[in-house]
Amino acid sequence: MASAALPRLIAVDWGTTRLRAMLVSREGAILEVSSADRGIMSVPAGGFPEVLRGVVAAWIERYGRLPIVMAGMVGSRNGWVEAPYAECPASIADLAARVVRIPFDGADVLLVPGLSYRDASGTPDVMRGEETKIAGAGIATGTIVTPGTHSKWISLRDGVVEGFVSFMTGDFYGALKDHTILGKLAEEPEDPAGFVRGLAAARRYGGLTHQAFGARTSVLLGDMGGPEVGPYLSGLLIGSEILNGMALDRPAGEIVVVADGVFRRNYAAAFEAFGIEVRFLDPEETFIAGLARILEAANGPAS
Amino acid sequence: MASAALPRLIAVDWGTTRLRAMLVSREGAILEVSSADRGIMSVPAGGFPEVLRGVVAAWIERYGRLPIVMAGMVGSRNGWVEAPYAECPASIADLAARVVRIPFDGADVLLVPGLSYRDASGTPDVMRGEETKIAGAGIATGTIVTPGTHSKWISLRDGVVEGFVSFMTGDFYGALKDHTILGKLAEEPEDPAGFVRGLAAARRYGGLTHQAFGARTSVLLGDMGGPEVGPYLSGLLIGSEILNGMALDRPAGEIVVVADGVFRRNYAAAFEAFGIEVRFLDPEETFIAGLARILEAANGPAS
Repeated sequence: MASAALPRLIAVDWGTTRLRAMLVSREGAILEVSSADRGIMSVPAGGFPEVLRGVVAAWIERYGRLPIVMAGMVGSRNGWVEAPYAECPASIADLAARVVRIPFDGADVLLVPGLSYRDASGTPDVMRGEETKIAGAGIATGTIVTPGTHSKWISLRDGVVEGFVSFMTGDFYGALKDHTILGKLAEEPEDPAGFVRGLAAARRYGGLTHQAFGARTSVLLGDMGGPEVGPYLSGLLIGSEILNGMALDRPAGEIVVVADGVFRRNYAAAFEAFGIEVRFLDPEETFIAGLARILEAANGPAS
Repeated sequence: MASAALPRLIAVDWGTTRLRAMLVSREGAILEVSSADRGIMSVPAGGFPEVLRGVVAAWIERYGRLPIVMAGMVGSRNGWVEAPYAECPASIADLAARVVRIPFDGADVLLVPGLSYRDASGTPDVMRGEETKIAGAGIATGTIVTPGTHSKWISLRDGVVEGFVSFMTGDFYGALKDHTILGKLAEEPEDPAGFVRGLAAARRYGGLTHQAFGARTSVLLGDMGGPEVGPYLSGLLIGSEILNGMALDRPAGEIVVVADGVFRRNYAAAFEAFGIEVRFLDPEETFIAGLARILEAANGPAS
């Protein structure tokens, strides 16, 4: 039996709406996945051990007790245990030093804390889950972008997270598409030509609240079709995020974007339209690599 | 009997959700108001004459047939009759020349058209209702601001509307406050201290999608209370509108803001915080003055 097939740890990505556990090999390959619609919002106080048991019991029975490492909103105030944020600037060693150990069926489950940051104005920012992707991205100096409901732009220098900035890109998209006048105009199936128009609009004057209105008037005056409205809004918001992100005081070095699926397609199109070179990383591989690295820093190298 | 009490016209502000008819004296005073929750969205095709009759019949019976002048979304595609937009640059005479006359009980009702504008990039913008306030604002050169769901910043030079820019300030506020993560944090009754914080955030980096997230993190880390969240968002959006509006290529001359109630209070606080001098006009008086002026331009001076 090749050692490649031997599991080394169970990686758990436990967010607001979803729980995903992965059986990971010594080489970092995902051997099996067990997921459930049991995000932290659906778990009553005290119910976390039972939910985790449900997704990992078969593996433990088969392979014995493996290290279990969790990251995400499971460490928030409404999660299993609140893991206090590590404050930026913070290294992977700082994250590992703040890992919370939760007793679970006779051993400990490791919970990775989030990161917090205060900018020069004193405004705070926070993340939970993305810190693990930072640890797995494998760059020492540069910018890491994690697109999503609340996208993050993270500045990394010599292995230290200097700070980061959140953008409510996905959250704005959902609210504006369904709950403003644009919602009455948007039609399915979507026409991706609208995305390119939205990117162009992001570079014009007046800001988001003006350029979003451009979708309404363009449809009203027959310049654009209803199927372009949703992609236009997406292009406008992603374009705006990228322009604001690029304007941040960031370290030199490459820009790495951790995204797959539609996020990867959209961000790739946007960065390319703006003439910005980026490299994409797979979110799940990056998460796994990050958890393994944090586990190693917390426990010393695995035997 | 003093002539001041003699009605001269019936002014009708007929929008998406509300119908408001005003009996107006020769001197421009509002003698009586008749309103109904019969915005154009609630009126079936062909039902407009009957709804209008319901609100003006008593006046016509008492005073005989008076001129009736309407403005607002009643002239849109989903209104009584579609009044094609007058294109900017446009003067009050241009508006008057495009007034639509609709037969109504043996005479004509006058319907004021909206304005459209295409900026240098070709992006269109439109208004219906605000053009009447422009006509009534009584300035020849300057900027007129009409706060609301879709605020407008209007450039006027020598009596000609050169162009205008819409901001979805109120529309964004409603969608973001109720349908993003901020909605879960906002508490009533509101604390107006949040408005000042939001204004300050509008001047910082990262744009709306970043600075809006600041409300979430500030509450999470105990810097701000839930009652400040709604006012913070309001201050951020109004502040952003004003900063983007001031950055427009605008004519010299004063800035006139047509607003009352909470809009007036919020915009007054925002302009003052930014050190910008503005003058406020009452929306209803300005609307009435504008309709009278357009009627005069369309018909010649009233006898």
